[in-house]
Amino acid sequence: MRVLDIRFPTSLSLAGSDAMNKDPDYSAAYVVISTDRDDGIEGHGLAFTIGRGNDVVVAAIEALRDLTIGQEVSAFTSAPGAFWKHLTGDSQLRWLGPEKGVIHMATAAVVNALWDLWGKLEGKPLWKLLSDLSPARIVELVDWRYLTDALTPDEAQAMLERLVPTRAARENEMLRDGYPAYTTSAGWLGYSDEKIRRLCREALADGFNHFKLKVGADQADDVRRVAIVREEIGPSRSLMVDANQRWDVAQAIEWTRALASFKPLWIEEPTSPDDVLGHAAIARALEPLGIGVATGEHCQNRVVFKQLLQAKAIAYCQIDACRLGGVNEVVAVQLLAAKFGIPVCPHAGGVGLCEYVQHESLFDYICVSGSLAGRVTEFVDHLHEHFVAPCVLRNGRYQAPRAAGTSITMKPASLAEHTFPDGSVWRHAPGRRTER
Amino acid sequence: MRVLDIRFPTSLSLAGSDAMNKDPDYSAAYVVISTDRDDGIEGHGLAFTIGRGNDVVVAAIEALRDLTIGQEVSAFTSAPGAFWKHLTGDSQLRWLGPEKGVIHMATAAVVNALWDLWGKLEGKPLWKLLSDLSPARIVELVDWRYLTDALTPDEAQAMLERLVPTRAARENEMLRDGYPAYTTSAGWLGYSDEKIRRLCREALADGFNHFKLKVGADQADDVRRVAIVREEIGPSRSLMVDANQRWDVAQAIEWTRALASFKPLWIEEPTSPDDVLGHAAIARALEPLGIGVATGEHCQNRVVFKQLLQAKAIAYCQIDACRLGGVNEVVAVQLLAAKFGIPVCPHAGGVGLCEYVQHESLFDYICVSGSLAGRVTEFVDHLHEHFVAPCVLRNGRYQAPRAAGTSITMKPASLAEHTFPDGSVWRHAPGRRTER
Repeated sequence: MRVLDIRFPTSLSLAGSDAMNKDPDYSAAYVVISTDRDDGIEGHGLAFTIGRGNDVVVAAIEALRDLTIGQEVSAFTSAPGAFWKHLTGDSQLRWLGPEKGVIHMATAAVVNALWDLWGKLEGKPLWKLLSDLSPARIVELVDWRYLTDALTPDEAQAMLERLVPTRAARENEMLRDGYPAYTTSAGWLGYSDEKIRRLCREALADGFNHFKLKVGADQADDVRRVAIVREEIGPSRSLMVDANQRWDVAQAIEWTRALASFKPLWIEEPTSPDDVLGHAAIARALEPLGIGVATGEHCQNRVVFKQLLQAKAIAYCQIDACRLGGVNEVVAVQLLAAKFGIPVCPHAGGVGLCEYVQHESLFDYICVSGSLAGRVTEFVDHLHEHFVAPCVLRNGRYQAPRAAGTSITMKPASLAEHTFPDGSVWRHAPGRRTER
Repeated sequence: MRVLDIRFPTSLSLAGSDAMNKDPDYSAAYVVISTDRDDGIEGHGLAFTIGRGNDVVVAAIEALRDLTIGQEVSAFTSAPGAFWKHLTGDSQLRWLGPEKGVIHMATAAVVNALWDLWGKLEGKPLWKLLSDLSPARIVELVDWRYLTDALTPDEAQAMLERLVPTRAARENEMLRDGYPAYTTSAGWLGYSDEKIRRLCREALADGFNHFKLKVGADQADDVRRVAIVREEIGPSRSLMVDANQRWDVAQAIEWTRALASFKPLWIEEPTSPDDVLGHAAIARALEPLGIGVATGEHCQNRVVFKQLLQAKAIAYCQIDACRLGGVNEVVAVQLLAAKFGIPVCPHAGGVGLCEYVQHESLFDYICVSGSLAGRVTEFVDHLHEHFVAPCVLRNGRYQAPRAAGTSITMKPASLAEHTFPDGSVWRHAPGRRTER
């Protein structure tokens, strides 16, 4: 296992700035797991952070080393759910979460590296590897502890069985058309009105039908910027707004109401990601206006997603590929969302998240939800050039990846240049803003 | 700032074993903050862990170094709430939580070290330092973001004002009698029936009236062990049971019902600490049996406590001194609990937690709740000998500390011997079980 501290000096451009995260340096706690096979196949995984503290996640991945290295690959591939519990259930490390924050992001990086390894060994992209599993094997991916009051393994298996006969048709559809995406690239807080207009027009030309805008820093600014986007995209396309946890419950309701005339499809992260009951109160207040609540990019684990669904707090479920504990827990949340009839619209952006979630959305459609209604996966056109086989968008849709694994393997030169603090990008960065 | 990785090889004795934490090595990510004053006064703080991963919390404390060191002490003492937000609101580090898990435990260690420093500078124990603050200054300790749908600063101030005229009487009562404690020392899972009996008798002789037992590993064992404790303590004293997150919702209800004839006062941590709605369902089912739900030692922050209170999910609120973000957030939860009329019964044990919570309970009684009804603070007789001024129990009550600060300063020899992995205790420990 090699663990790398990889950072991109994105704070210099203000791409990615929002009401809570003003100057992110998109970063990855990056792990490479190799084996004693002759073919040199390695599993790559990452946890996304936004700069300072990436080293803390690196330390947490190191803490999982002895639970991982020295095992047979088949310990994971023959019983991936049991292996997940082995990683999350260590009797001492569990105290650091349980299953949340730094230690859980480390779990995600390691688990997803193992999925990458498995995909490469099978010669299949992750979405195809998952979509070829039987319902019983999919059920076995999940740690069912704390879920059974909302969904039992038997119910999940029955849901999955019903979609098996039509899997092939949806797989062919996805190989032909790809999975619908939305763009956040036009709407960062740091951008001028003119830049927003230009980026909207470019995204329209690229075939997008859903456009997301950051809000929550200044109400008058928000009204003006949302009006610009609505004017550019016209009345029939979808506009979403994202407050990045800026508000208390009453303020979230009041502020979103002030934007209601522009017909946003959803308000994203209106308040604390930990506040299930707060999101439910906001959802009840905004439902008459036709505005749904979306959250999940900071939702720590399946237990909180379970409650967001039970409390009718979300109309859109936004899983994050590496804040949840990797593929296994993403599948758990996809199954829960399907049970409650809520579309999963993954969070992406940063570095590597688009590469991850394209697989997860394809699997969701082919095996779990069987529907595209209300479904759209985030896309941000940023940092993809560092990946060996980056995601490909066409006509506003993620094209089904063909390369084996999870698409997360970065180019060796990108890894070397962006290693913090000694890579060439950081040795020469003006101000070296992430540095202490 | 000096940050130390301190571990005690407690797994060798099985003291502290429960249904989820089978072999803890009680540990502390320990921080010392010094100043450029001539008097050598230092602030000491710690975050408690149970062994592996203590180094990850150490790394997280290091990540807070630049937000802390170089500031005037008055930056904290003149505006402790603003300083708390400065630590928790760093625009990049926030991604690692927000306000949960490893990064929040690091916040606790640093914040509590600053309180220790402040207490030592004023020559007051923490409880007295807090109890001498005006209601307005107490309100200023709290980060009110995400709380105002349950409690506003104005409401909190009014609650505090009402108790000001009677503060002095309660302070005198506490100096005379101390704060009621309960013991967990008799009930660890690793202990034989005979050892449980002997420890119950010793605790009775020491004046305890509340006894807690670990359950959740084996139902028949639990019935036998709970019967033993009830037999030893008689019908009028209180018996509590603690499942350490072992169950799903339905199982928690069924298992606790099987123990109902022994009249437990509370069932502690019946399920996931993240499951507000699950705890609420368990509370509704057990209320007719007179059994309350208690949780909080793994509750990550004030937002989750807010919801546990809003949902009527807990009858006892068990704050943890260093899983919450230090004194400031503990005060936030004490105020919320007072608003909802729920007693705060702090979690303690491990290493240093008893030293911390004795101060917090005294302040709660003198300034926030004004009541002892249903209130009792955990005590475990373990590792206190390593502190310069350890907590003192008499007649089953915590005696009000007289030494300045938070009581958390460890003896230099204890720190040196237990530094991991190079202290003498670890160099010679049989098996060195925490080591990787």
